[in-house]
Amino acid sequence: MTRPTERVLQSACRSVIARRRIADLVRKTEVLPSRVTLDAGTEIHYKTENFQLTGSFKLRGASAKLSSLPVNRPVITASSGNHGIACSLAAQRTGHKLTVVLPENVIDQKRKSIEAFGTRIVIAGADSSLAEVHAKSLAEAEGHTYVSPYNDAEVIAGQGTVGLELLEQLPRIDNLFISMGGGGLISGIGSVLKSMSPNTRIIGVSATHTAALAASIKAGKVVETAHLDTLADGVAGGVDENSLTVPLASEVIDEIVHIDENHISEALRFLAWKENMIVEGAAALALAPLLAEPGKYAGKVNVVLLCGGNYGKDRMAAVLSCSG
Amino acid sequence: MTRPTERVLQSACRSVIARRRIADLVRKTEVLPSRVTLDAGTEIHYKTENFQLTGSFKLRGASAKLSSLPVNRPVITASSGNHGIACSLAAQRTGHKLTVVLPENVIDQKRKSIEAFGTRIVIAGADSSLAEVHAKSLAEAEGHTYVSPYNDAEVIAGQGTVGLELLEQLPRIDNLFISMGGGGLISGIGSVLKSMSPNTRIIGVSATHTAALAASIKAGKVVETAHLDTLADGVAGGVDENSLTVPLASEVIDEIVHIDENHISEALRFLAWKENMIVEGAAALALAPLLAEPGKYAGKVNVVLLCGGNYGKDRMAAVLSCSG
Repeated sequence: MTRPTERVLQSACRSVIARRRIADLVRKTEVLPSRVTLDAGTEIHYKTENFQLTGSFKLRGASAKLSSLPVNRPVITASSGNHGIACSLAAQRTGHKLTVVLPENVIDQKRKSIEAFGTRIVIAGADSSLAEVHAKSLAEAEGHTYVSPYNDAEVIAGQGTVGLELLEQLPRIDNLFISMGGGGLISGIGSVLKSMSPNTRIIGVSATHTAALAASIKAGKVVETAHLDTLADGVAGGVDENSLTVPLASEVIDEIVHIDENHISEALRFLAWKENMIVEGAAALALAPLLAEPGKYAGKVNVVLLCGGNYGKDRMAAVLSCSG
Repeated sequence: MTRPTERVLQSACRSVIARRRIADLVRKTEVLPSRVTLDAGTEIHYKTENFQLTGSFKLRGASAKLSSLPVNRPVITASSGNHGIACSLAAQRTGHKLTVVLPENVIDQKRKSIEAFGTRIVIAGADSSLAEVHAKSLAEAEGHTYVSPYNDAEVIAGQGTVGLELLEQLPRIDNLFISMGGGGLISGIGSVLKSMSPNTRIIGVSATHTAALAASIKAGKVVETAHLDTLADGVAGGVDENSLTVPLASEVIDEIVHIDENHISEALRFLAWKENMIVEGAAALALAPLLAEPGKYAGKVNVVLLCGGNYGKDRMAAVLSCSG
């Protein structure tokens, strides 16, 4: 076991401080034991951020960031997904004026659900990454604070509060399975665990259809990869140049497991029909290694982070009705 | 508001005492707020006994009963459903020898899941009620203690511990929706609430296809009714002669709502696709009044008791894939 680096310790400390600020803004989500009978000594527990307010862990990072900013300076971000909704609820609670930039192709329902929080909407850019570019330039032009979904030390610290809760909820954690997107979640939680429970193995789970973070960690620098359509759309996308998460994730991840679409489907069905929870693909992704290679994790206390529960119904119904 | 009767107060006290005995045997289940945006002032919360160990509140009553009995006297019951599994886990924890009588038509999978706990199985009787008759005579012949799924003061007190938790988890409860089967659950929880939070309205929810308890309360005595096939199979069945639950339930229920199969289906779909939980029909039953007449419960803090999460997959998949 190696000593955590200064960077990792600093992120863990930031999580401790962030937790005090966001205590009234987020739920302490429950850890549920698996309903499935396992061999003696083997445990599977789910950390249920799928039941977090807004249906995603992103509320933690958004709340940590907004609560660190003066309330008289407006805030801007770009996301039609979990981060946009999380910032909207966080801003409603903290009192920040919030603008969310949405791409021109945004689904009407997502636009409405963000507007319902009283968030100002700007439509700009042909896709999400162009909307993000617009949001950054708008922030600069208008003197607003831009909030990245993952490339921000306070956002990372906010996501790390999941780890602080886990340490109170379980006396021992051998393996912690976390989905890899931009890397905010695994960097934040990994820093907390490596600082406070160094024997816990942090297992990063990467979808083969969108593996930019895994590829960047391997290369030791930010690299671009092809992004194919994936059931784990919550973790889809590239990694920012100069991302804080690449060095941090590199220092806290013990193992990366690559998971294809079939195994994400299988994990979604397992969670629905065995564990009675319908979660988003990015959440099921984290369980997939345990289903694919149960022997590898036998005799251990395994914790699966279910990162969110926001999905499109039609696609999910099709996946769940498949046999298996 | 009328003062609770002596019978109700006694049941509530018994719940307080039972709770101490079963604290290490059952989970304190979480109260989850609805994910759906509601009008200001209206709240819906779910008490998630669907995530209780064994997937049902029945573990509470079984644990309360077994922990009240000397461990050297064997115990016998009859149930291929949630009560049988609950007694099996409870007996494993308390150390009681347990026999479960199953009817000849029991599904192989249910038999196996009960046997997996180390429970002794006796197959007798053409259906569940005949298996129950056999269990009672076997208990008498062998000098074992017979444990009813609901017609027992300790079992009722055990179910009432759900109410004690709710009072700690929510500062105010205006309406509490509880499915009606044999009446153990609503009698136990209703007694606790009427004693400690008399302004909370207890709303009993009765499936029109199996309404023996509702009919018995109306008649003021145990009456038989026709039992048709229902999605809420967890509450199916008649009420014992001299049942403790009929007078108790009569004294604690403020209103009975009758729900047909279509509304149970609708509630199952709502819970799956809006709240992300797949529950059994008897649990969805409790939500159905809120979906059928939302205006009636607007501006109130409404709590829906999700009593269990054990269901047959094929039937559930068919219900969930329906449009709506």
